Amino acid sequence: MTHGDFGLLSPVSASSAVAALTGDRAVIAAILDVEASWAGVLEEAGLVPAGSAAVVAEAADAGSYDAAEIAERAQGGGNPVIPLLGDLRARVKSLDTSGIGAAKAVHTSLTSQDVLDSALMLLASRTVSALLVDVWSTTTALATLVGEHAETLCVGRSLTQHALPYTFGLKAAQWFQGVAAAAARLESLQLPVQFGGAGGTLASGTRLTAGSASTPFDLADSLASRLGLAPAPAPWHTNRLAVTALGDGLAALLDSFGKIAADLLFLSRPEVGELGEPLAAGRGVSSAMPQKQNPVLSVLIRSAALQAPGLASQLHLAAATFNDERPDGAWHSEWPALRQLLALALGAAGHLRELTKGLRVFPDAMRRNLEISGPLLLSEGVAAAVAPLLGEDGKQKLQAVVDETLKAPAAEQGRIYTKLLRETVPADKLSDAELKALLDPASYLGEASGIARRVLAAYPDFVAPAENTGTPTKGATRG
Amino acid sequence: MTHGDFGLLSPVSASSAVAALTGDRAVIAAILDVEASWAGVLEEAGLVPAGSAAVVAEAADAGSYDAAEIAERAQGGGNPVIPLLGDLRARVKSLDTSGIGAAKAVHTSLTSQDVLDSALMLLASRTVSALLVDVWSTTTALATLVGEHAETLCVGRSLTQHALPYTFGLKAAQWFQGVAAAAARLESLQLPVQFGGAGGTLASGTRLTAGSASTPFDLADSLASRLGLAPAPAPWHTNRLAVTALGDGLAALLDSFGKIAADLLFLSRPEVGELGEPLAAGRGVSSAMPQKQNPVLSVLIRSAALQAPGLASQLHLAAATFNDERPDGAWHSEWPALRQLLALALGAAGHLRELTKGLRVFPDAMRRNLEISGPLLLSEGVAAAVAPLLGEDGKQKLQAVVDETLKAPAAEQGRIYTKLLRETVPADKLSDAELKALLDPASYLGEASGIARRVLAAYPDFVAPAENTGTPTKGATRG
Amino acid sequence: MTHGDFGLLSPVSASSAVAALTGDRAVIAAILDVEASWAGVLEEAGLVPAGSAAVVAEAADAGSYDAAEIAERAQGGGNPVIPLLGDLRARVKSLDTSGIGAAKAVHTSLTSQDVLDSALMLLASRTVSALLVDVWSTTTALATLVGEHAETLCVGRSLTQHALPYTFGLKAAQWFQGVAAAAARLESLQLPVQFGGAGGTLASGTRLTAGSASTPFDLADSLASRLGLAPAPAPWHTNRLAVTALGDGLAALLDSFGKIAADLLFLSRPEVGELGEPLAAGRGVSSAMPQKQNPVLSVLIRSAALQAPGLASQLHLAAATFNDERPDGAWHSEWPALRQLLALALGAAGHLRELTKGLRVFPDAMRRNLEISGPLLLSEGVAAAVAPLLGEDGKQKLQAVVDETLKAPAAEQGRIYTKLLRETVPADKLSDAELKALLDPASYLGEASGIARRVLAAYPDFVAPAENTGTPTKGATRG
Amino acid sequence: MTHGDFGLLSPVSASSAVAALTGDRAVIAAILDVEASWAGVLEEAGLVPAGSAAVVAEAADAGSYDAAEIAERAQGGGNPVIPLLGDLRARVKSLDTSGIGAAKAVHTSLTSQDVLDSALMLLASRTVSALLVDVWSTTTALATLVGEHAETLCVGRSLTQHALPYTFGLKAAQWFQGVAAAAARLESLQLPVQFGGAGGTLASGTRLTAGSASTPFDLADSLASRLGLAPAPAPWHTNRLAVTALGDGLAALLDSFGKIAADLLFLSRPEVGELGEPLAAGRGVSSAMPQKQNPVLSVLIRSAALQAPGLASQLHLAAATFNDERPDGAWHSEWPALRQLLALALGAAGHLRELTKGLRVFPDAMRRNLEISGPLLLSEGVAAAVAPLLGEDGKQKLQAVVDETLKAPAAEQGRIYTKLLRETVPADKLSDAELKALLDPASYLGEASGIARRVLAAYPDFVAPAENTGTPTKGATRG
Repeated sequence: MTHGDFGLLSPVSASSAVAALTGDRAVIAAILDVEASWAGVLEEAGLVPAGSAAVVAEAADAGSYDAAEIAERAQGGGNPVIPLLGDLRARVKSLDTSGIGAAKAVHTSLTSQDVLDSALMLLASRTVSALLVDVWSTTTALATLVGEHAETLCVGRSLTQHALPYTFGLKAAQWFQGVAAAAARLESLQLPVQFGGAGGTLASGTRLTAGSASTPFDLADSLASRLGLAPAPAPWHTNRLAVTALGDGLAALLDSFGKIAADLLFLSRPEVGELGEPLAAGRGVSSAMPQKQNPVLSVLIRSAALQAPGLASQLHLAAATFNDERPDGAWHSEWPALRQLLALALGAAGHLRELTKGLRVFPDAMRRNLEISGPLLLSEGVAAAVAPLLGEDGKQKLQAVVDETLKAPAAEQGRIYTKLLRETVPADKLSDAELKALLDPASYLGEASGIARRVLAAYPDFVAPAENTGTPTKGATRG
Repeated sequence: MTHGDFGLLSPVSASSAVAALTGDRAVIAAILDVEASWAGVLEEAGLVPAGSAAVVAEAADAGSYDAAEIAERAQGGGNPVIPLLGDLRARVKSLDTSGIGAAKAVHTSLTSQDVLDSALMLLASRTVSALLVDVWSTTTALATLVGEHAETLCVGRSLTQHALPYTFGLKAAQWFQGVAAAAARLESLQLPVQFGGAGGTLASGTRLTAGSASTPFDLADSLASRLGLAPAPAPWHTNRLAVTALGDGLAALLDSFGKIAADLLFLSRPEVGELGEPLAAGRGVSSAMPQKQNPVLSVLIRSAALQAPGLASQLHLAAATFNDERPDGAWHSEWPALRQLLALALGAAGHLRELTKGLRVFPDAMRRNLEISGPLLLSEGVAAAVAPLLGEDGKQKLQAVVDETLKAPAAEQGRIYTKLLRETVPADKLSDAELKALLDPASYLGEASGIARRVLAAYPDFVAPAENTGTPTKGATRG
Repeated sequence: MTHGDFGLLSPVSASSAVAALTGDRAVIAAILDVEASWAGVLEEAGLVPAGSAAVVAEAADAGSYDAAEIAERAQGGGNPVIPLLGDLRARVKSLDTSGIGAAKAVHTSLTSQDVLDSALMLLASRTVSALLVDVWSTTTALATLVGEHAETLCVGRSLTQHALPYTFGLKAAQWFQGVAAAAARLESLQLPVQFGGAGGTLASGTRLTAGSASTPFDLADSLASRLGLAPAPAPWHTNRLAVTALGDGLAALLDSFGKIAADLLFLSRPEVGELGEPLAAGRGVSSAMPQKQNPVLSVLIRSAALQAPGLASQLHLAAATFNDERPDGAWHSEWPALRQLLALALGAAGHLRELTKGLRVFPDAMRRNLEISGPLLLSEGVAAAVAPLLGEDGKQKLQAVVDETLKAPAAEQGRIYTKLLRETVPADKLSDAELKALLDPASYLGEASGIARRVLAAYPDFVAPAENTGTPTKGATRG
Repeated sequence: MTHGDFGLLSPVSASSAVAALTGDRAVIAAILDVEASWAGVLEEAGLVPAGSAAVVAEAADAGSYDAAEIAERAQGGGNPVIPLLGDLRARVKSLDTSGIGAAKAVHTSLTSQDVLDSALMLLASRTVSALLVDVWSTTTALATLVGEHAETLCVGRSLTQHALPYTFGLKAAQWFQGVAAAAARLESLQLPVQFGGAGGTLASGTRLTAGSASTPFDLADSLASRLGLAPAPAPWHTNRLAVTALGDGLAALLDSFGKIAADLLFLSRPEVGELGEPLAAGRGVSSAMPQKQNPVLSVLIRSAALQAPGLASQLHLAAATFNDERPDGAWHSEWPALRQLLALALGAAGHLRELTKGLRVFPDAMRRNLEISGPLLLSEGVAAAVAPLLGEDGKQKLQAVVDETLKAPAAEQGRIYTKLLRETVPADKLSDAELKALLDPASYLGEASGIARRVLAAYPDFVAPAENTGTPTKGATRG
């Protein structure tokens, strides 16, 4: 076992799938992809010897480089591109057996910030694509819950207390809205290529292209196209909006995950029992207590959601202190924060996918909890409907009924509220049947279904065309 | 003097202009505007007595309410809407001299979160409009600097050291890009109205509109329209993307301000002297040292930029822990952070406007500093141009020249570098004139002008049509 | 109503008591106290005309200064001391009717950082003293709960699920430990005076004291003594440990409050019902729902706890970027964060005091919730006691019993677990009575009482000598 | 190359020395050390078969476990202890060839939080010890600079502008004070052992020790002693002050490093040139510019200092939301933040040690920069000395001199100020010689030397007894 961080202290993102997209090897691969693509750009523009790009591409095989060793050497120049370039050049030379001078195609006219900024955008692009596939599964699963539970009564809660009748379908719809809105925003982000040269003037590139048919701007666009990144109108060495917007987008997505986890963690408590995480062998176990079935997916998702705000903030701090044409520490503080955000989001997205696809829903418990508050839960609606029947001070009279009710033990409150209401409102103004109807929670759901429909309609791309077929039309193309 | 916070410890935003848009009185005004607009919506829909809206509008005069007293009472329910409503209702009743029942138009079918969320979006909308006017002045001033200093040579710096020749026009262009990109993003944000009723089901609104021609969704759209906010497809009580995106946008704008301030604070140091803040009586003074002329605009802007990341992060943390249909503390932690971000951004925008409009630029100092590094600054370009003339190991030979040069005292390095270069490269491969040209910083500016042009072209709305007329065509409409 | 922030958006700290200690008027009072004390120091050392200090003291009446107006002028120099000094000097001159030259005693040899740093330490010292009185009431109330509920059975929960039998007394003891440990740490902090002069060399003070019996260090110690602050071995202009340690201490206290609030907010939910906040007229009301009784004290405390980490972090960020002999923005970013932390801690301490003193405890609900898990809750203890009776694979056999049990509906699990256990363990190895005893939660409380006793004993200063007398011996002296 | 994080994106801490103390292997070693020590405790107390501890100790060899594989399995239970225990138990059984039942000594009566909390405290303790050795070298190097440069004149700067004459010795003394104060605080922290059992009641431990001579509290103390951790009066499962205080202490240390780096990064700029980082082959190089010598040690230190505040904040956030007897995500969010803080502090401490030991100081440049402001720098002292000679409005007259001076070009200001002064003050009140003395910067250093001496005296443990012998008496015992 070499020294390193394999996720032991970050279980939410400790998986080989996450590591493959965000670990140091993925960083090296992204850096090498940038260099290899650049060689292709230069060769296509006739600026380096024909055949160079193929040699560089062969040399740019991430598996041949030693991340730990390069990391240690990165302390010399303060960034990992410099030592990796040393190794890449050596490898290109050794592979350039026919001596075409392929080394000329390595890093020519670039600076390490060009390479690292572009490489991290590439890494981000790949990671975001992968996590959007998981997100799409989650939103599709939530949309299914919306449909299945459009009529499932539960209680809406505010400031921890029972507020009004609600449906579990609407709750799922709100979760859907949160995730879909954040994911749509993340999906729409432009992740731009970086090319500015040493000081951001493209001076070397200008010299290089002098006399050729290309400008440095053409080379930049060509690199963007090869890497699948967005073109940039100009170098953005010192303007970090692309980085902070990415961080903000990841944080917003994790916010939406965190909201779901917070609800789950309450609703699956033994005293509540409205929901349950999917069961799986070995999941949720304890080192001491044989009976424990911990909602570990939600716990891990929540742990990620608690970390994201600070990491996104780190990126803004870097941006706000990005002095000179390249700064004296701010840039370096971006890298671990951005990578960790990507890993947390990808890890959490996988757990949430599993959680929502296998969520266990217990409508009976929802109904039982709803009945704890019973008719009192309708008091807003009662006040609106009945106060006008009681004259000028109708509202006050009804508040007095509620206040009197609240003095009784909780278990008695439903009965007492109904009785006091009956005594307060003359039967000729409100019949027993009308009163009963008023106190039926199903009668006071407002636009629960309409809201749910509108939410799903607002994000059509986040639902499978036929939910029950499971065909991830869009998701598939995202992968 | 009553107790309160008047900005004594936050000089960057301590102005009556900022307080007028973000202080407690502005919050009360925004809450009252929401209630008054709502009364208008209800009356228009025929749901409350004719004439109600006018009475509510008359009562909704912020100057009649006592913020400090309402704030203290807000502890009871945990939010300021509840006590303010009490006062508003009393005032509506006392103004409803003809007894039309105008009180029915106050808050009917709303919940306090509807009002506070909408009111804070309204406050944000007004504040963002105001600050964009300042931003527009700033970007226009920067665009002017871009034009004026397209040829002004200075040095580009990375990791604090001299990197390459640069122009001050390009520096201004990069500042412009930072501010314009962040402002465009902020300007494009949708600030949505909130209407969901007590639990987010619109139950009360459904009852209210039953039998009328309107749905609750219609009322919400109508409220948005009256307030100048964006309509929302559905209640967003628990999905805070609108809030976090606003916070992120403000933070990103402050990041771009902070980058400029960081540069200014260095470039206006006595040892550097390339730039100077505009002078004004009483500005930059010290309580102890008569000679001090502190760059206080930049200092204050930087102090804001250092605070923004944490405040934006606070909003994400709230979003990530927003449990239930209304949460148990997270919502409450949003308000001060959002207000403080708005105040900091508005305060800093005003200072930056003043700073950029009156910026003093000293091209001689720029040239003097450039010459500290002298010809060594061209060594990247020299290497590219000359190495091929020296055979296989040309690069190594030239690096040896540089290394040898760096052993000399700084003041000697320019002379020595030139001499060693001359000795290393045979005159038949590179004439004296060619060498001299290579070592001219003005010859190695790459695409400095082109980049500047592209940046300005990318954000046409952020430059006055005729810069020297000072007509803020767009800005004016923003105000 | 003037413009300003009166706490409308920060209900946790919106009280006149908090504003009196942390508002702008309190800042002005603290600044004036520093200047007046300094005049006393100078007069005592014979460095200014006799009688000066009395004039300055008379002029240093906070009520005579206009915070809002001073705040606006503070933008010129970037700090509030400069304009306030202007007003103070004018007032001293007008009060110095006998012309003794009292103005010489104002600010002589000080710099604005000396005054503001010392003033904020003074403000902090006063606020911390006040909040420790509240904390002492809280810990005393918690200690009472520890005693009263030493035998009150409830369930211990981990990762949201039932873990083991617990007592409410132990829960209260852990809350006590959290608050007392954090408060003791805060109480032990040294809040130092600042005196370094303009650049931190004491140059002006050295000149001033030349030929006198005093050194500048003597003056500093004398100032510390007059203000009740700690002496400092040297100026600490650029080393902000005193500030960050204060912020960390306040954050740690708010952490301990937040932990209690988090527990309360769960335990007082309708589905749980183990605890209730004290009732009070108008508290916990809703603008829409007549029946709501929100746990608003806990909600407000939690809102403060969610804000503290970011604010403490802001202080560290300032410290970490404190360049030069006085920095270019970092110092300015400290002030609002420190003040807000103080206000939040003081506000929350008051709410927590009220909450813990009037906490409603429902042992029946605790018992009822404990019984949801029933005998399964003892499975750790059963495993330890019974596995050895079952041979080599005893643990596996018992885990199998648990796993089988968990397949049954929750309501059945207790009965089934008992039955399966009985079938698995031969009666000759474990009698029915022994089994019953093993499954009694009261038998498996471990050292619950012992831990509680140790915790109380570790912080004797945080408990009233005779709890029921309510004599706040120590607290009183703190106020 | 396996997947993992080897520090590629965190060059400040990317070294094998840091990884050896803070990487996943070190975590595993710490966990195993806790388990092995616990086995020793149990055996000593006669609670497990004789010989068990030796078997467990043999099995507890970190090199035999696969961190990556354990990390992936950690997702099941949400923490790494559970899968590692599985492997440890299997290994103990296979090594227990004589069948003494050594497995009984593994984890008995512990819960995974006991092990992980204790293990992270152990890891922290080891890391802090190592970094204090580096810190001690740094403070010793700084103390040497204090002595060497007691008379080295430079300029003191505030808000970026020249303030007063200063000495480099005093600057070094202030750096010393910052580091020593923070390190002393960190060194004084108690890092406690954790032992509470599954729910924090010690129930299992109580059963285990029943009938023995030991109590569970004895076992806890014994474990603390074996691990070199502090004993804890009670379990602190839910009260995280030990963790937040550690995080705060590390952040405060990094603050003090960041302050030095910020100064260095300015003072070593080409325009300033007062200091230089130690030179070393390959350090500070660029991928594009042959001439670059970046101050990469300072850059890396600053990058760490910018990250620490957010990480310490993360720990407070966890503490503030630590619900139940073990929380639902907060605990999990602590681990990566704590580990990253330790790694950053250790990495940065090593760089700072190297930086301060080899710091290049250029007194000539200091003098040159001082002279930029020339006599104007003395204007505070001049005002104090001369104003009384000019009557009532002496101060105003002198301010007018300064204001007039400031209108001139910078290069002229010294001459003009002197001339105007001479014209303003009658020679009979201030002779030419007296004026010249007044304008000598060396005459206005106040207590620069005294402050430096007091600072060194306040932290005697942080200086080598004989600085020039380099004998790290205390540091050596710390390692």
